Amino acid sequence: MTRKIGVALLGLGNVGGGVIKLLEDNAAAILGRLGSRLEVRTVVVRDPDKAKRVVDVDRALLSTDVDAAVRRDDIEIVCELIGGTDQARTAVLAAIAAGKHVVTANKALLAEHGAEVFAAAERAGVDVYYEAAVCGGVPIIRVLREGLASDRVESLHAIVNGTSNYILTTMAETRRPFADILREAQDLGYAEADPTLDVSGGDAAHKLAILVGLCFGTTVDVNAIPREGIDMVDPIDLSYAEKFGYVIKPLVIARDHITAVEARVHPALIPANWLLADVAGAKNAVYVHSYALGPSMYYGAGAGMLPTAMAVVSDMIEIGRNIFARAAGAPRPHRPRPVEARPMVAIADVVTRYYLRFGVHDQPGVLGQLMTILGAHGISIAQVVQDGAPGRRDDDQPVWVVVLTHEAREGAVRDALAVIDALPIVAQPCRVIRIAG
Amino acid sequence: MTRKIGVALLGLGNVGGGVIKLLEDNAAAILGRLGSRLEVRTVVVRDPDKAKRVVDVDRALLSTDVDAAVRRDDIEIVCELIGGTDQARTAVLAAIAAGKHVVTANKALLAEHGAEVFAAAERAGVDVYYEAAVCGGVPIIRVLREGLASDRVESLHAIVNGTSNYILTTMAETRRPFADILREAQDLGYAEADPTLDVSGGDAAHKLAILVGLCFGTTVDVNAIPREGIDMVDPIDLSYAEKFGYVIKPLVIARDHITAVEARVHPALIPANWLLADVAGAKNAVYVHSYALGPSMYYGAGAGMLPTAMAVVSDMIEIGRNIFARAAGAPRPHRPRPVEARPMVAIADVVTRYYLRFGVHDQPGVLGQLMTILGAHGISIAQVVQDGAPGRRDDDQPVWVVVLTHEAREGAVRDALAVIDALPIVAQPCRVIRIAG
Repeated sequence: MTRKIGVALLGLGNVGGGVIKLLEDNAAAILGRLGSRLEVRTVVVRDPDKAKRVVDVDRALLSTDVDAAVRRDDIEIVCELIGGTDQARTAVLAAIAAGKHVVTANKALLAEHGAEVFAAAERAGVDVYYEAAVCGGVPIIRVLREGLASDRVESLHAIVNGTSNYILTTMAETRRPFADILREAQDLGYAEADPTLDVSGGDAAHKLAILVGLCFGTTVDVNAIPREGIDMVDPIDLSYAEKFGYVIKPLVIARDHITAVEARVHPALIPANWLLADVAGAKNAVYVHSYALGPSMYYGAGAGMLPTAMAVVSDMIEIGRNIFARAAGAPRPHRPRPVEARPMVAIADVVTRYYLRFGVHDQPGVLGQLMTILGAHGISIAQVVQDGAPGRRDDDQPVWVVVLTHEAREGAVRDALAVIDALPIVAQPCRVIRIAG
Repeated sequence: MTRKIGVALLGLGNVGGGVIKLLEDNAAAILGRLGSRLEVRTVVVRDPDKAKRVVDVDRALLSTDVDAAVRRDDIEIVCELIGGTDQARTAVLAAIAAGKHVVTANKALLAEHGAEVFAAAERAGVDVYYEAAVCGGVPIIRVLREGLASDRVESLHAIVNGTSNYILTTMAETRRPFADILREAQDLGYAEADPTLDVSGGDAAHKLAILVGLCFGTTVDVNAIPREGIDMVDPIDLSYAEKFGYVIKPLVIARDHITAVEARVHPALIPANWLLADVAGAKNAVYVHSYALGPSMYYGAGAGMLPTAMAVVSDMIEIGRNIFARAAGAPRPHRPRPVEARPMVAIADVVTRYYLRFGVHDQPGVLGQLMTILGAHGISIAQVVQDGAPGRRDDDQPVWVVVLTHEAREGAVRDALAVIDALPIVAQPCRVIRIAG
């Protein structure tokens, strides 16, 4: 008789439904690769009587009692798909305390309570896997933890939020404003009813905190990661970017400064001929630069029912393999640990290139004033475009002066802009977008 | 005292030198992640007195005796970097018989003797890892074996030979002929003195055989994989491809037909807006389409001293982790096994689109004759260009008629071309390049 591994699912939303579907659809392949079946024996939901679900599930499997589910003797793997940090944290810690291995797709939980969760798992001698927490089905956690185990990551540029990428890609194609595209994305189900976490960079910051831990062996305070949302990008910025040979992408960026770590979340101009520039729609990609391998990139679906479930079930298979190799829960020195907390580079100390869009009143000498102030702050200019389109000379409408700088310290740029934005010739605050790559 | 793991290196060429360099350069990172040092205790070379090496190695470490090296009590991991299939096979089987774990970068060995090697390893209870055998530093083996463990790969398109990609990329940029670029690549050290294995598709076929095993859980006879080299591509084909919105890349292609497996190696036209089209120079990339994840891509350096060494050392780290988890050599149902040998789709039965370049004498009615014969064989045409450049009406020079077909069976295409190539109006045999993506 084939040995079976008992699984408890906590949560039966999109991903939970995907897990059940995938375990059925790919049953033969999974059996072939694991030599065993993964059997869902209980599913904890808020309301067992809910009429409409993503998949049909035997009513007898449903319960509302997390504590009882994670303690059952016939459960070896607890799969946390509740989301959020409160109930999920309690449930994961309860599962670990009951000696169960855990699979979670919960980036917020790991970004905020990862150290606590991994320490508890190590004490209890259980595995915690979380491939689905970053970039959905793209196996970036395994790539960094195992594939690049012998390498040192120097920098990382990634698109980790599909909603933001979808909106900016659509804006680039249609030049329609942010709010329009967001509303449409909500109607199509590509964006949440409350899109704040996605478009403001909060979700991306959670993922970046996990990536920084894996890449640099350190922990960062997720709340201290500087972030800007994509709502600051106007269609006109995409037009100027294109003119200069760039596109605008919602990036997370991390860099090893040996004694410190740089981490930031914001839309950025990137060269149009960079591989990341072609990552369109809701797709995710992580572009890594490491000492030995040099550049490498990992691309795929960062969200969605089946892609995310794929990562969750692959984690279950890995735990199953560990169980059969009698290695499940074995001490793993490569678990993320707060061994070597390093300070984060202050945003004022970040050195990068900038796209600056000034909205000024069209008066003689304006360009000279801007350049003089930038120069006085040590900021040197790579390219300038002044909007000279005929018919634009309308006193109510600002004229755009767009500047691409060479590398500059962010503190100097902010100081210069504070002076410039206070000038009477300036019609509206400067739009600042960092350049990457 | 830190536990150390003893390593024997067989071979000290480019990759062996890279392994020694990487173990030194990244010593702290590796210690942090493995909790142990990997210590090279013996290096087997052909000539210990060779004056010039990639790295400096203590003369006392060098020996010429493979058998003695793999049997030493202080060796836990044997790293085979000899290359080829004869001596390498003997050495790897000897290491396994001596109870040592093995890391190899040898695609030819695994493509031709993989079943024998893995069976021996399973009997002996040792691990065999081979990440560097395909795409150098890109961790595609781990991605397929673990990251996509719960998924079913439907098709795979990949650039796995850096030399071929370098030559076609340079040809696309400069429109210089194949032989020129190859000679330059040899001078620069990008191509071997004997480039046959690289440019004829032999190296790519070895890698494809390994990928097919991982993706579809079956073995294929590497010698039965249909292959065409990149020397069949002329600069003019790149010009026509560009005109139609395509580029030409050196691809390996595999597809699951459930009862059979399709596998082939050849240059192919691919749409210029496909992510694979931007994989330039000597870089490698694997584009996978799987049931749950959909499309995903893995990109990076497929060759080179440090990238390849990175994959080798990451494999050593994984074996080290297995050793500490007391899981090294544990039965792994996911090891490639010839469990389910499936036939290969005959090349005549492949269905794809085609680029056909006919060299014809410029006479009235030529186009009609070509189209009639193609139509009679059930081949329908998507686009046609007849070279009508002024000044081309030179009887010695053929006129080019370039056709892009809709999907057609290769057998029908070959039948039609046999008829066409025999026509008196035809000046030279038709150039056939398959279209992918």
